[in-house]
Amino acid sequence: MTRIEIIIVGIGGMGVVLAGRILARAAAIYENKEVVQTQSYGAEARGTAAKSEIIMNDKKINYPKVRKCDILIAMSQDGLKRYLPYLKDDGNLIFEQSLVKDIPKRKKLKTLGVPAIEIAEKVIGNRMVANIVIIAAAARFTKIVSENSLKRAITDIVPESMRNINLKAVDEGIKFLKSRLRQANLPF
Amino acid sequence: MTRIEIIIVGIGGMGVVLAGRILARAAAIYENKEVVQTQSYGAEARGTAAKSEIIMNDKKINYPKVRKCDILIAMSQDGLKRYLPYLKDDGNLIFEQSLVKDIPKRKKLKTLGVPAIEIAEKVIGNRMVANIVIIAAAARFTKIVSENSLKRAITDIVPESMRNINLKAVDEGIKFLKSRLRQANLPF
Repeated sequence: MTRIEIIIVGIGGMGVVLAGRILARAAAIYENKEVVQTQSYGAEARGTAAKSEIIMNDKKINYPKVRKCDILIAMSQDGLKRYLPYLKDDGNLIFEQSLVKDIPKRKKLKTLGVPAIEIAEKVIGNRMVANIVIIAAAARFTKIVSENSLKRAITDIVPESMRNINLKAVDEGIKFLKSRLRQANLPF
Repeated sequence: MTRIEIIIVGIGGMGVVLAGRILARAAAIYENKEVVQTQSYGAEARGTAAKSEIIMNDKKINYPKVRKCDILIAMSQDGLKRYLPYLKDDGNLIFEQSLVKDIPKRKKLKTLGVPAIEIAEKVIGNRMVANIVIIAAAARFTKIVSENSLKRAITDIVPESMRNINLKAVDEGIKFLKSRLRQANLPF
């Protein structure tokens, strides 16, 4: 793996920062990568936009700021609009289907819409884990970290009372991806 | 407040990243600052050096990388050595007294040694909260966030089972600072 840069954006309260911490830990501790993870708080933490950046590399990270990202996970339309300019032309765009409607038409972009909030609410019974549903689908779609590393990081970070539904959210995110790829006749 | 840049360094397992998250949340949510917080994982998370950077500002933060820092909190001698070049000449150096022995002689530097591990172990009964003892003393010494904001951030972030000893660690850190300042005939 060369350097991979990821931006997760959404609205405060969606768990964007937690999602970033989980991905960072999965990569650093369970896949032996060098990881730098940055989050902004402030106006953002108080209910508007929330953002987390993760840089992963096999080697030491010299420039710890995201330049052009490989993966943009957008949980809000505003977030997509604001950070799309930072996504590489042939990057991966993963978005929350119910909130992000205006998808850019770029030939080389790989896109995946995930109904993460719907899955979290209807299948798992808790809207709060939509962040995990979407990062699980994104992780498998882009091969950044394995399902197993993701689950181990969740077990480390998430409080015990919430652990099981978060682990179920990983399963459901991957299950969704599987069915979506099958529909499109793509290998899983 | 103008822009304040803080680096916390120590050894993996000392809770450097958690300390950074607590300071960031205290400033962002309870003191209405703009905050960017960065942590590195990797070789660092696997047991050697650990580092957390926090930038606080009243205004939007344009350059989110620490340049010269105002406050260096060093929980290890190695960490001090590595990050001292980034500390402003008239900055604040707060260090763990039992592990950092070689203190730079710089005229304008404001220094504070804290026996945080000893206080955590002997007074609170848990070595794990040395990180909170030291950031509480540092926060009061440098006036970056109030005791109250620090406690509210801890209540939000720390799991319930550990909450009380972490809150006690804030009290003990501040109590230590008070007695140290009194010894030196300085106002608290």
